Amino acid sequence: MIKIDDPLVQQSFQELATYIALPSVSAKHQAQKQTADFLKKLLEEVGAQVQVLTDYPAPLVFAEIKPQQPSTTTILIYNHYDVQPEEPVELWHSDPFHLKITKDKLIGRGAADCKGDFISRLTALRRYQQKHGDWPCNIKFLLEGEEEIASEHLPQYLAKYHELLAADLVLWESGSKNEQEQFSIQGGNKGVLCFELVANSAAIDLHSSYAAVVDSAPWRLVAAINSLRDADGHIKIPGFYEQVLPPTSREQELVEQAAVPDLQEKWQLTLPLLKNKSVNYNLTFSPTINIEGLSSGWEGPGVKTVTPKTARAKLEFRLVPNQDPQEIFTQLTQYLQDQGFSDIQVNYLLGESAYRWDLQHPLVDLLVETAQKCYGGADQIELLPSSPGTGPMALINQYTQAPIVACGVGYSKSGNHAPNENIRISDYLEFIEFFDQFLERL
Amino acid sequence: MIKIDDPLVQQSFQELATYIALPSVSAKHQAQKQTADFLKKLLEEVGAQVQVLTDYPAPLVFAEIKPQQPSTTTILIYNHYDVQPEEPVELWHSDPFHLKITKDKLIGRGAADCKGDFISRLTALRRYQQKHGDWPCNIKFLLEGEEEIASEHLPQYLAKYHELLAADLVLWESGSKNEQEQFSIQGGNKGVLCFELVANSAAIDLHSSYAAVVDSAPWRLVAAINSLRDADGHIKIPGFYEQVLPPTSREQELVEQAAVPDLQEKWQLTLPLLKNKSVNYNLTFSPTINIEGLSSGWEGPGVKTVTPKTARAKLEFRLVPNQDPQEIFTQLTQYLQDQGFSDIQVNYLLGESAYRWDLQHPLVDLLVETAQKCYGGADQIELLPSSPGTGPMALINQYTQAPIVACGVGYSKSGNHAPNENIRISDYLEFIEFFDQFLERL
Repeated sequence: MIKIDDPLVQQSFQELATYIALPSVSAKHQAQKQTADFLKKLLEEVGAQVQVLTDYPAPLVFAEIKPQQPSTTTILIYNHYDVQPEEPVELWHSDPFHLKITKDKLIGRGAADCKGDFISRLTALRRYQQKHGDWPCNIKFLLEGEEEIASEHLPQYLAKYHELLAADLVLWESGSKNEQEQFSIQGGNKGVLCFELVANSAAIDLHSSYAAVVDSAPWRLVAAINSLRDADGHIKIPGFYEQVLPPTSREQELVEQAAVPDLQEKWQLTLPLLKNKSVNYNLTFSPTINIEGLSSGWEGPGVKTVTPKTARAKLEFRLVPNQDPQEIFTQLTQYLQDQGFSDIQVNYLLGESAYRWDLQHPLVDLLVETAQKCYGGADQIELLPSSPGTGPMALINQYTQAPIVACGVGYSKSGNHAPNENIRISDYLEFIEFFDQFLERL
Repeated sequence: MIKIDDPLVQQSFQELATYIALPSVSAKHQAQKQTADFLKKLLEEVGAQVQVLTDYPAPLVFAEIKPQQPSTTTILIYNHYDVQPEEPVELWHSDPFHLKITKDKLIGRGAADCKGDFISRLTALRRYQQKHGDWPCNIKFLLEGEEEIASEHLPQYLAKYHELLAADLVLWESGSKNEQEQFSIQGGNKGVLCFELVANSAAIDLHSSYAAVVDSAPWRLVAAINSLRDADGHIKIPGFYEQVLPPTSREQELVEQAAVPDLQEKWQLTLPLLKNKSVNYNLTFSPTINIEGLSSGWEGPGVKTVTPKTARAKLEFRLVPNQDPQEIFTQLTQYLQDQGFSDIQVNYLLGESAYRWDLQHPLVDLLVETAQKCYGGADQIELLPSSPGTGPMALINQYTQAPIVACGVGYSKSGNHAPNENIRISDYLEFIEFFDQFLERL
């Protein structure tokens, strides 16, 4: 396996340090041009044709490398160069924008999501090139700058440039080992519909003695939210489950083979789990509703005898394939009206569709075989048709028409989005080896 | 009527300015000793025997004046020298702790609640003394420093010193004209039980993709709160209404005679009023439940895909006579358990009992007759057996065994507790005249 003192690895640490030092927090629109230019330079160094597209906010970096002998196979590597905000800074043990290299870890904002992934992939390509002086197939790169803010302008970019994107397989931004230390290969993500409910009841917060006759925003909000699901988690909106795409038998098989996380132990859950066919079934195949937050009136210490004029809640649905966010939003607003909550404002915040597939493809077979060899056997690999999270896979799939597969350098304690985000050096080296071996087998 | 340029009035403005300049915010434990000492000096100047009791936090000022000829009548004046916090300071148009005197108003923190009341009462007493060189009866003063923080130590003070407090009538801290400009005389206040509901579901906030199987604190909180009342405001806790003391026919009569405030117009209410026998009936005689505030998870802009580990709500019941806060709290916790919410923490925050009476007493008759004369006739007076608000009347009544009546210098836009708290100079002068006339009739 490739060693830490390999000059390619040492060079990659320097590149990762420079990359992490660019504070490309998309929520703050930071360092977008500089980061895109840095990536252009890196990719040109390996001989890629690079375009930095700037039609919309946050430049989109597209690059392509081709072997001397024309190849009929194209792999598209999708990564994003933006990162989550570093806050809360006080919980970091080191500067979030300075790559800290310890005996066994690489620590910094973006180490796991997904600057470390991109650099490890690039390093594997360099290694292949060093050995062969050429490439095994066409490799395309699509590097966006707004993934952490719901890929706000990616649809416009893709609508304009989708002809660049034709590929046979998309390698998704990142991935990680699970808690059982299995290398996880995933073929999808859920969709999402984030919305806000706002109740207003008066021009001002009232002295609460008037609550003897005046109804109020928080009561209305609580009743409206409570109408959305049963205690077991079943969503009560008519038609909500109608378009849900049931899993194929192959997809179900993959999920049944996967290890079951002990969530109750892990997070000291105090409530029973929601009704589920199995934990993994629900995480992979079931749509769900979540309250992200509630806010109304007096939230400080002690009491304040106030009847709040306003109450707000942020909620979200996680969606599965064939559920359309806009259509679900229409069903939601109709349902609330039918239940007598026409006084509640329903605000659409963002929506993304789901993507899922059964991972049956010769290139994925090759990827899995390589992983089994590099990661220690079939029982060290997890194959899942979808992650429970959300990303722009459906969008990328729509424009590439290529199946998508995700895997990467993270592990179960990488802390994506959290303080002290990190990856293990051993996972980083293992992935370089694995991806290089995959390229060898193409 | 007494004029603004009367030396007694001019002196009282100076005293009120000094009083308001003492920033006696009880929530911040400010200026307690200085304010008590200031009151001691003021009261000694009119010849009172004054004790500043310091057994518990916030000194309690007790004072007594007696006529040369022993009197069998004792009136106890209850006021508090503490005020609400001045925040939000940016909404004040002048320094909250500097008495601003305009053409027609006295503006500053405590002007209406209740430093202006105390000084106007003292000024009427001075005026009486100036005319007669004596007092019409025994006058006692009970001035506490923690009314705005639920009279935290008053029960202990009263348990120890209640023998000082024997009286025939208690004149309550303050009062105001209503929106119809009627001078309001009120004989009670509601009780209160403030409590907190806390739901906990996990050791940390979870990535919301896990909401596909994990139940969460905000869902539990919303369901628990929603179980407490019907949409029409009816409280669903068994036994809650059992001890409610129905109004006497005299009390009902008083309420029926009172003007009905147009709350919907006044506050631009967007929801129908709760079910009520009449607005004034509910405000005076009905217990109620209110949500003071809700808090959970992500309350900032945009979305955050989090499943909150905790959700909190502050609520309160307003109680009527014979409802015991402790007993209601027991019913509440039992009900939540019976409804399956034993996972919800129920925290008792504070409780006070209600006090109400029908205002039938010779001294009140005298007060009302005087008010009718001074304020322009019977239709310029409002008599109510209780205010919809809460205060320590039940406690004072328990230890004085005397009926309580509230009236004062405020008006409907005084803005007690709010920025730019103020009274009108005309109301202030009118009250001095009225109270002096009342003393004359004793």
